Formats: sequence, structure tokens, C-alpha cells
Amino acid sequence: MRHLLDTKTLTRSEAISILDVAEDMAATQQREVKKLPTLRGKTVVNLFFEDSTRTRISFEAAAKRLSADVINFSAKGSSVSKGESLQDTAQTLQAMGADAVVIRHGASGAPRTLATSGWITAGVINAGDGTHEHPTQALLDAFTLRKRTFGNASRGRDLQGLRVTIVGDILHSRVARSNVWLLTTLGAEVTLVAPPTLVPQDVSAWPATIRYDLDEAIAAEPDAVMMLRIQLERMNAAYFPTEREYSRTWGLDAERVNRLPAGSIVMHPGPMNRGLEISAEAADSPRSTVLEQVTNGVSVRMAVLYLLMAGERPTDEKEG
Amino acid sequence: MRHLLDTKTLTRSEAISILDVAEDMAATQQREVKKLPTLRGKTVVNLFFEDSTRTRISFEAAAKRLSADVINFSAKGSSVSKGESLQDTAQTLQAMGADAVVIRHGASGAPRTLATSGWITAGVINAGDGTHEHPTQALLDAFTLRKRTFGNASRGRDLQGLRVTIVGDILHSRVARSNVWLLTTLGAEVTLVAPPTLVPQDVSAWPATIRYDLDEAIAAEPDAVMMLRIQLERMNAAYFPTEREYSRTWGLDAERVNRLPAGSIVMHPGPMNRGLEISAEAADSPRSTVLEQVTNGVSVRMAVLYLLMAGERPTDEKEG
Amino acid sequence: MRHLLDTKTLTRSEAISILDVAEDMAATQQREVKKLPTLRGKTVVNLFFEDSTRTRISFEAAAKRLSADVINFSAKGSSVSKGESLQDTAQTLQAMGADAVVIRHGASGAPRTLATSGWITAGVINAGDGTHEHPTQALLDAFTLRKRTFGNASRGRDLQGLRVTIVGDILHSRVARSNVWLLTTLGAEVTLVAPPTLVPQDVSAWPATIRYDLDEAIAAEPDAVMMLRIQLERMNAAYFPTEREYSRTWGLDAERVNRLPAGSIVMHPGPMNRGLEISAEAADSPRSTVLEQVTNGVSVRMAVLYLLMAGERPTDEKEG
Repeated sequence: MRHLLDTKTLTRSEAISILDVAEDMAATQQREVKKLPTLRGKTVVNLFFEDSTRTRISFEAAAKRLSADVINFSAKGSSVSKGESLQDTAQTLQAMGADAVVIRHGASGAPRTLATSGWITAGVINAGDGTHEHPTQALLDAFTLRKRTFGNASRGRDLQGLRVTIVGDILHSRVARSNVWLLTTLGAEVTLVAPPTLVPQDVSAWPATIRYDLDEAIAAEPDAVMMLRIQLERMNAAYFPTEREYSRTWGLDAERVNRLPAGSIVMHPGPMNRGLEISAEAADSPRSTVLEQVTNGVSVRMAVLYLLMAGERPTDEKEG
Repeated sequence: MRHLLDTKTLTRSEAISILDVAEDMAATQQREVKKLPTLRGKTVVNLFFEDSTRTRISFEAAAKRLSADVINFSAKGSSVSKGESLQDTAQTLQAMGADAVVIRHGASGAPRTLATSGWITAGVINAGDGTHEHPTQALLDAFTLRKRTFGNASRGRDLQGLRVTIVGDILHSRVARSNVWLLTTLGAEVTLVAPPTLVPQDVSAWPATIRYDLDEAIAAEPDAVMMLRIQLERMNAAYFPTEREYSRTWGLDAERVNRLPAGSIVMHPGPMNRGLEISAEAADSPRSTVLEQVTNGVSVRMAVLYLLMAGERPTDEKEG
Repeated sequence: MRHLLDTKTLTRSEAISILDVAEDMAATQQREVKKLPTLRGKTVVNLFFEDSTRTRISFEAAAKRLSADVINFSAKGSSVSKGESLQDTAQTLQAMGADAVVIRHGASGAPRTLATSGWITAGVINAGDGTHEHPTQALLDAFTLRKRTFGNASRGRDLQGLRVTIVGDILHSRVARSNVWLLTTLGAEVTLVAPPTLVPQDVSAWPATIRYDLDEAIAAEPDAVMMLRIQLERMNAAYFPTEREYSRTWGLDAERVNRLPAGSIVMHPGPMNRGLEISAEAADSPRSTVLEQVTNGVSVRMAVLYLLMAGERPTDEKEG
């Protein structure tokens, strides 16, 4: 694997391969000493054009557990904000020895441009680009679903037949897009639930069923309900319901959780707006996998960094 | 030791134990290679809701000297500022593998809430909360006092009979509170000197003597005078003297230093407002322990991190 | 070498010694594992009073490749901005165990003050001070010139007879100043080209030829043309030409590059304003050494950190 730009073009076997390596990584995180020497001497740059402390910290923890050096580059206040091009920034980072660039960017497609322009040879990982994709989020979600379903017998498995319902602002959500592509590639059936004004125009081309009523979706007995974060700064926009309306109609509360079938789980990419898209009871219920998702995120990102940087090459370096 | 939340509930033997481990840590900092492998594979998160570069750097240096991975989480601009709860932030950090959380928070009691709520199992270290406590500051102050008094024969000792005078804005000072509890637990006699408007209402319940006249306090021949930093942003408040009045009446200048008994030391937690609460001559005098306090701060924080994370468990890891 | 404060006082043999160590460092960066154990247990503090992500990251990468611990101290929002003096900041950092301080400061001479005041004993590296100097930039430029000229036979060589033309806002450029001193010390002939209003008043005392016409300078067949970055925020100042005028008269475009003699190179310290002082074609031409300069910057900074911190002392530490 050279880059991780999206889940739309990820094949079933590539996805399973990432999830299987993530299983290995998760196992190492149970040890007394969680650190692996695998990427010693490698440099990972977190190139963040948008703030995202959670995602940045998750990648930083993943890289450090693999003994890579991590350099955080926040584009705010840097020469980037003084007009330096993405090309020059990326080439500069590679010239300093970056082996992988983790990029978060407000423009959909920026990671692909970086990876395919020929500007750099370093591996590129999309950590969220505009409303396009957030592939490691979908991978950690798939990892969580697989683990909850198959436990220690997860390796090599896909998600055939699992029914996943994604609820919220589908229109603006890169998390939804990445999950739709990945989960269906892995055999799951995806249902999207959203207010009519928050459904993308091209949604009929997506491999997913659209519903507008959360209670009907719950009655259909999904294996997992994934609640999307509402971006509060969008709340005043015309296409948005009021907070109260949103919470009542599309929010997940204890009563709705109780109507889910036994074994069904509640997912959220975080950070949660408790009381808006998810109630405190739902967030903290035993069905909630919110924190497992966070833990799995580190393992999945370790796997992606490993596959991009250590690749298939045998490493002759020994633990330091 | 599971957490370090305050000095008020710290027992004499716990406090001496921390100071003794800090002695060991200080000794390692004299070596050519200052790094210890003790916390390799552990992750320390600096969770700072208020800026404090000095304290953050001191903890960061301490953790790195013990080979821990350090992740800095500044709550500004993060999802925390978008309304994420302390609970969710802390649980997220722990889910990413944080073994200890060093928290600086504007609200008194936030570290205790974090430690006792059952939200997380990671060790919690209070790096300053509101006007409540700043326990590692008091521990480094006690370490400095003990070292100045007993030198290499410090181990196992308390501060029985030492007289310490703390001067300044007692009302708002968590440094003063932490020192009052710790120093008296260790047997010292504490005198507080402040303008009448900067004395807490409940001060009669504190194990300390109150004075309003610095010169009288100096005439009483303290072993140490600890000057508190004036928060300049409070200077326009009604209860505050003018800068000039403050400096003249409650500031420590060369003339007052000269009236201290031989062997008496001048302390300050930094950063100093030279010319306000302390004159340049006083700050740079041979009696000043300001820089020793900073150095000792790293050793004390190494000790606290060690006790929280390595505990009594024998470590089978070898130096890398 | 105790400090690196400028290139003006650097002798020819000191400069060559740094460049030769940088050659060794560059060789290690070709290895599969780029990390050296040389500075394990040492602490490097990046003390930046001005934003400069590129320079900070370059020093950070250099220090980490040598296994030093790196602490980034951005003076913004810190107690420094609350009025703490440079003396107290520096002494605090050293008291925490800083072995070297890399300082970027808006005031010309601040690094020298830090190094010569007696406040600290740690090594001081000037990472850019006001309009004074930026010595590691000049060293990486000299390294690049030497490497391009002599290839693998560079060790021990100076730049005798090379002709270097520096173009742009000489008046405000610390990069120009550091290069003028260093390149001439190494035997090169330096020509400066600038709009008349952007030439320093004391330039007649500089060991360089002044020209006002870029085309005449190119006709003189330089071995290297170094384009300086235009600070856009100065563009509205009275002494500045318009952007269009600047670009047409003092910018390097493809047509001018084509008039350079064979083997002549195009340099830029970055970040570039493409379309202003340098066109995209010039920036990306095979003559351009922009990215080599960045790569060499890490090697040069590794060399400087090594010489300041490991010195001539044999190290008995083994790779971990």
C-alpha cells in the first residue's frame, strides 16, 4: 500500500488486510510495554490545515507506539497561511525526511492531489478532507463492528450481512461517505437516516438505502446505529432543523436504544454533543462502543502507518 | 499512589516518600545521559485547559527523561472548546492509551472530579486547578527547603521547626494553599503576609499565622520567604493596591533581603515580575532559590510520574 | 564550539569543520534507519519568539535524528508575553535541563545577549534574529553550493572563486547578511542585486558588489543566483516597488534562468512566493536547489547540534 486516500477505491482484500494488521497491533497494546521498534528512524508529519485534536493525537500516539518520530505541523500561523502552496509545503516536508504525511485539509481531494501529483514520494494518509472522506475513521468503525461480531475469530472476516444505520447530517459528513463505501465493500447493508435537507443530491448513486424516519429505521432491527456528530456551527443554516427538533426527531435517546434488538450496538465517531444527536444515557449505555472506537482508532492507524512505511519489506532493525 | 490531587490530604509519610524518590531522580539528572528507561511504552497526556508553558514543559521534560511518550493536548481550539465534556475528553484520552493525565484547569476541583468519578482509571496529576491547589509546586518547594537545610542528608527528613513566610496575593493563590497544607504536614510553621483585601475569608481555619506587615514578618527571622507572583491582570481590581503601593509595602527588595537572618532563603514559583513583588537584586541574590526550584521541579515531577505509573511493581523492561 | 550566533565571526576553518560534519550527517540520512544515538539524554529547546514553522521543524527533525529530546517553547501565550524577561525564560529552561537553546527572536542581537550575558551555560543557536543573521541558513546554502560544485569530493573544501548573486530585499534580510559573511569567508565573490530603496545604508562596508539591475548581474555569469523571499506584509511600505514592478524587474523567471550559464544554480531559502520573486518555472527547473537546501538544512543543523552538545568529547554511550 502506497497511500490511504479513501475507502471508495479500497478493495475488499486490502480492507481486510488493514483490519487484520490492526488486530495484531491491538494485541501489542495489551502488553506491559506498548511500544514497538518497527518504525524507528522513520518520520511521520501530521500536516493539519484544520484543527482536529482528537485525530491528530490518535495518529501521534499510533506513530509513537511504533517508535517513529512525529512532527506536528499546524498550518495555522505558518508560511502556508502566508500563501505557500500545498506543493511547496509537502515537498519541503519530504525534503526534511518525512516518510509519511498525515493530512487533514478543508478541501475535498487535497490528499489525492498530494499523492498523485508526483510532488512527493512519501506515503500520504487522508485524515479528513472537506466533505469527501475520512478513511481511517471508517476503518476503525469496521474494525469495531467486526470485533463486536466475531471477537477473537475476526481475522480474515468481512461484514457480510451486517446491517448498519448511519444517522445525521449525511450531506456534510465525510465519515458517512467513507463508511458507506467501506462497509458495503465488506458486505454490510447500509441505511442512511437524515432530515430531507441533509441528504446529498447524488445519494441515489450510493450503495445505501435512504430513510427519513429514525424510528422506522430502528424498527428494521439494525446490528449497529452510527450517530454522526452535528457541527453546531451549521445549526443556524436554513437547511437545518432547530436543535430541539433535531434532537427529538433524529437524536438517539434511551427510549430508542431500548427498542434496538439485543446485541445491536451504538456507535459515534466523537466528539459527542450529548443531548443533541445522542443522549447521555445512550452514550454511556453498555451498547455504546464510543470508547472502543477510540481505542481501535489507534490500532487501525498503527496498521496503516505500518503498511505504508514498513510495507512488506523485512526489517533487520532490532528493538532499541 | 493512584493520583496526586492536592497536598491537603497527603500524609507526612506519603510526602516524604515522594521527596525521597525525587532525591533519586535528581541524582540521575547529574549523569552524562539523563534518560531513564523506566516509563518506556507509557503515555503521559498533558491536558491543559489554561496556558502554562512552564508547568507543561516541566512535566514534559520529566516524562521524557523517564522515556514516556508525551502528548500535549491544549484544550484551546479543540473539541473541548466546542462543548465536549471533561468526561468525554478524559475517557477519549484514556481510550487512546493514556497512562497518566496531567491536568491544568480553571475550575477548582476538576482534577478530583476526573480522578474520583469513575470515568477513567489512568493516574491523574493536578497541575493547578482554579484557586484550589498546585501540589507539585508545593512538593518542589518542600524539596528545595529540605535540600537547602539538610543537603545530602535529606532523605527521610521532614521540615520540623522551619519557619516559612509566604507573601502576596494569598486570596487567589493555589500555590499558597498547597504550600500551607504540605509545609505544615511536614512540621514547618507557616506565616502568611498579604494586604488585608487579599486574605481569604476562611483563613482563620488555616494552620498558619496571618500578618499584614512584611517588615514585621522579616523581623521574626523566617528560614524562608516565599514571594508569590502577582497576576498583573488582576491589578485593576478594587481589592488590589496600586503597583507602586504593592511593591513598596509587600515587595521584596535588596534592603529587606539584607534584614533576613543568615541562611534564610528567598523563594518564588516563577515567572517573576521583577520590580513588582520582587526586585532584580532580590531575585538574583545568592539567597534566591528560584532556579533551584525549577530544577527540583523536574525531579519532583519525575518522582510523581514514577510513583503513579511504575508504582511498586517491579519492571522487567531493560534499558533500550 | 560553544554557540552559533552569527557567520560574521565564524572563521574559515570553523565553517569548513561544520560543513564537513554535515557531510557525515547527510551520509547517515541515506540509511534505512536514519536515527543516531549521539545525543540521547540531551534536551534541545526551540525557543521561538516569532513563528517559523519551517525552521522550527528542521531543528526538531535534526535533534530527533540525533535522539535528543525536543521541547518546543512558543513564546506566544506564555509567561514571556506576560512580561517575563529573556533572562528569566532562558535561565528557567536551562534549570529544567536544556543542553542547547535554539532561539528565534525579533530583536537583532538577542541570541548574543543570551550567550554572552553569563545567564546560562547551555549552547545557544541563533535561528534568526531581527534583521541581523540566520547563520544555519547560510551554512546550508554554503553546503549546497559546495556539494553542487565538488560532489563527493567536498570535504575540506571552501568556495574559492565561486560567484554568487543574491537578489531581493537586502535591507531587511538576515539571510543575505549571513550569506555575505559566510560565503566571502569561504572565498566566494558575492554580488547583491536590489531595488535602490532596499539596499542597506552601510552596504559599502560589506564585502560585496552592489548592482541594481538583475539582467546585468545575470550577464556577469554567476555560479548561483539566490532569490530572497519577499515579505508580503512589507509590500505596502513606501520604499517598496509594486508587486508587478518587483516581479518584472527583480523576479527570476524562465527567460532569465535560460540566460544563466550552464551549471549555474538557482537558490531560494523558502518559503517561495511563486510568481513574485521567482516564477514557477524557475522554482521547478532542474537548476533549482530549493529542495536540496531543505534536505541539507537538516544535516547542517544536526552538525551544529552535534558540535555544540557532543563536542570533541568521546561518547561512551552505545546505541540503544
